[in-house]
Amino acid sequence: MSTETQYEAYRQILRKHADVEHAIAVLSWDKEVNAPPRSSGLRAQQLATLSGMAHELITGAELGELLEQLSAQPEALEAKAQRNITLSLKEYRRNLKLPQDFVIRRSKANSAAYDAWLKAREANDYGVYREPLQAVVEIKREEAELLGYEDHPYDSLMEAFEPGARVKALDVLFADVKAQLVDFARALRERPQVDDSFLFQHYDKDKQWNWGLELLRNMGYDFEAGRQDLSPHPFTTSFGGTDVRVTTRIDENNLANMAWSCIHEGGHALYEQGLLLSEYGLPSGRYVSLGIHESQSRLWENNVGRSLAYWKAHYPALQQRFPQQLTSIGLEKFYKGINRVAPSPIRTEADELHYHFHILIRYEIEKLLIEGQINCEGLDEVWNQKYKDYLGLDIKEDREGILQDIHWSLGSIGYFPTYSLGSFYAAQFYQQASKDLPGLEQQIEQGDSSALLKWLREHIHQYGQQYSADELCERICGERLNFQYFMDYARKKYGDIYGL
Amino acid sequence: MSTETQYEAYRQILRKHADVEHAIAVLSWDKEVNAPPRSSGLRAQQLATLSGMAHELITGAELGELLEQLSAQPEALEAKAQRNITLSLKEYRRNLKLPQDFVIRRSKANSAAYDAWLKAREANDYGVYREPLQAVVEIKREEAELLGYEDHPYDSLMEAFEPGARVKALDVLFADVKAQLVDFARALRERPQVDDSFLFQHYDKDKQWNWGLELLRNMGYDFEAGRQDLSPHPFTTSFGGTDVRVTTRIDENNLANMAWSCIHEGGHALYEQGLLLSEYGLPSGRYVSLGIHESQSRLWENNVGRSLAYWKAHYPALQQRFPQQLTSIGLEKFYKGINRVAPSPIRTEADELHYHFHILIRYEIEKLLIEGQINCEGLDEVWNQKYKDYLGLDIKEDREGILQDIHWSLGSIGYFPTYSLGSFYAAQFYQQASKDLPGLEQQIEQGDSSALLKWLREHIHQYGQQYSADELCERICGERLNFQYFMDYARKKYGDIYGL
Repeated sequence: MSTETQYEAYRQILRKHADVEHAIAVLSWDKEVNAPPRSSGLRAQQLATLSGMAHELITGAELGELLEQLSAQPEALEAKAQRNITLSLKEYRRNLKLPQDFVIRRSKANSAAYDAWLKAREANDYGVYREPLQAVVEIKREEAELLGYEDHPYDSLMEAFEPGARVKALDVLFADVKAQLVDFARALRERPQVDDSFLFQHYDKDKQWNWGLELLRNMGYDFEAGRQDLSPHPFTTSFGGTDVRVTTRIDENNLANMAWSCIHEGGHALYEQGLLLSEYGLPSGRYVSLGIHESQSRLWENNVGRSLAYWKAHYPALQQRFPQQLTSIGLEKFYKGINRVAPSPIRTEADELHYHFHILIRYEIEKLLIEGQINCEGLDEVWNQKYKDYLGLDIKEDREGILQDIHWSLGSIGYFPTYSLGSFYAAQFYQQASKDLPGLEQQIEQGDSSALLKWLREHIHQYGQQYSADELCERICGERLNFQYFMDYARKKYGDIYGL
Repeated sequence: MSTETQYEAYRQILRKHADVEHAIAVLSWDKEVNAPPRSSGLRAQQLATLSGMAHELITGAELGELLEQLSAQPEALEAKAQRNITLSLKEYRRNLKLPQDFVIRRSKANSAAYDAWLKAREANDYGVYREPLQAVVEIKREEAELLGYEDHPYDSLMEAFEPGARVKALDVLFADVKAQLVDFARALRERPQVDDSFLFQHYDKDKQWNWGLELLRNMGYDFEAGRQDLSPHPFTTSFGGTDVRVTTRIDENNLANMAWSCIHEGGHALYEQGLLLSEYGLPSGRYVSLGIHESQSRLWENNVGRSLAYWKAHYPALQQRFPQQLTSIGLEKFYKGINRVAPSPIRTEADELHYHFHILIRYEIEKLLIEGQINCEGLDEVWNQKYKDYLGLDIKEDREGILQDIHWSLGSIGYFPTYSLGSFYAAQFYQQASKDLPGLEQQIEQGDSSALLKWLREHIHQYGQQYSADELCERICGERLNFQYFMDYARKKYGDIYGL
């Protein structure tokens, strides 16, 4: 077989794998959006069957041989193809390190923990969750050892979500968060609070829905290659770049609930719609990492969607949609209200500053768990103490404490840091975009974000995994991730709003 | 391996196959109901990948060996398991008769014909379709030879849709249709026509939609295990018995368009919801044949849903939903109107009597094509002549003539007869149900069809393919399919309506 033929064979396996993964995505989307109550058992079985088939494709000997042969003669491939082979081989070898019996045990531990988590939330009692969660933690410790690591076992777990992320670097990053953001947020809390009560009037469901569609359209989301639906928890899913769907939820008594979730998911979707179809199934056609994915959603949600410039363009139309509720609320009052900063026990309801304390707490706890320094016995007390220390909050019940997140019950340990990375990348990228596009703020004030989207497409979306997160950031900004951009953004914006 | 272990292994392969087939069904449903315009290319590729995987499962050597071994020791299995093995082996051997290169050629011929059919409809020109259709016909002739047959090549094609159906018996059946139904319909056409103009007023879309849901609910359709959506062409699809979905369409200027399509698809869905979950993936958990499936939809649509008893129960509520349109229309006028008999060139718009002329015409043409007595050159003229002969209609354009049906473009030759079989089985089954359930008509007059559904569940649904269509009919009615029940039903009902 010629190198070309081998590469084509490799490409076909990855294409087939992507087809099955996207079928899984369709069934999962349907489960959240449409499926009737009694369907859950069979649907789970069908999803498990497809997952098994996808796993067979991606761990099969045929793929392994192709990858070994292709990687042995890198000079025969152009750079993009070389990079694809390198990444696929890395993932292939990683998969091989986990024996099948381990994968089955892990899947069972996660299922049990997820069931227990649901029950524990229902009962508002961490005790129900403790033992199954301990089993997950032990499996993840074992996984880290199986996968191997240089410095820290947590590094090997993060690799699945944020390739290249290391405890060494994150410790420095979160030390900065503690050193700068904790004090800054405390200073803001001591200032007179802004008023956001106008957000909590009655806002008609259908009118909100239509407004959400308009926000997506204005961002450049392509409804010819996607759609929006309702689901209890908003999410974005891709069935390939020609069908990238978003969901949202609507609370008739809270305007903020839907709006920034639409913009956030829209940001994720623009990334998926911007990946190159010609690279379908290949690393060069996939998102870089969860952190980079989140940078796209956060950039639109916060740096754009909570900026004064953005609302200069969009607020008049919003007032027209809801004249009774908003005619008496001026633009500046609206802008301040949607940027209210206040600590709360729930991560998903946090403002864009306090959000990172929630991540910091999870990062510290996860590290301690994986290092084996603590176990799940008494973990609720550890949790509550950290919320007291960092946010000054007394956690009154498990549901608003340690039971709030689904992640651990799915075995997703090492995932949370990507949320903060996303925000920090977003601030840095947006700063660079503003430099590269001198008229950007004026364009956004005019309701035109097309130049920004073009910039994101050109600098980020089109490359897929051709560059790692670090490389991408360095190419775009001339330096690696730098927390200072986020702090500069935060100090300027919230200093203005809170008169600090 | 013990027989038990072998049977379990066989069952696991069929379960897995069913999981993939149901995933295909989800993707296909989504394509019709939800998918955005640009998704079609990738979605087709994903469906092809899943179809290939399903095909590998069902034609694999592992399944073949298990089936040969299990069928060699029938005494070790209980009757139901024996029957499953017999049917699966038959299908397995049938699949093996078609070499892979033939399957690929067939798939390409169908794709080309489908594309040509779309273009031909657009252009209203059979000429565009003729050659690709001829290729399909030649492939089907080849398929018949590959599969083999005793009497007639068309028999082997029908086997895919209606196992056991034979030209020998269908010729007798359709001779009866010609001898009795043609004359009877002509006699009706000579009577003064009933008025159905009240159906073509403006009926609000949302009100129709809610009414359709109510009709489904009343039939016993389980919305906990299904849902209704809109799609251009109504259909029923099953993702397993806990998720059986129906679609409908709404024409605001035609009340009939939605109503009987809801009831028709509801009848299909009740069958799928009534198959036993414990037999998931096995022949004993699958519908008998397309004819029997259609008997369920037609029984509800026509024998129940166009009966006077049914509307005694449901018409007052319908009048309340649409007082402006229907207050002045009495029950009897409504009943007559919804049973108006008039020939039309379009099969899907035909009344329940003329419908069978459309099928008769297609049956005659398909047989001639497969026998090689005619080809596609001039087939439009053959078509039009038959419409003149049987229905007295002049077909004015290809779109309302030979281009109206999608079936041939998909390679579905041998499919049409199942529609007539369905109606004839429906009449016979309904007659038997009325005998077995003495108070049935009164119950239906009260809006209660639960005893009928129970009867269908007990006598038909629960068995899956444990009995062939012939066996099932004989068990239920004491005789095989007998066209006379349909004619008796038709003469009585339409004799009354048209005063004949």
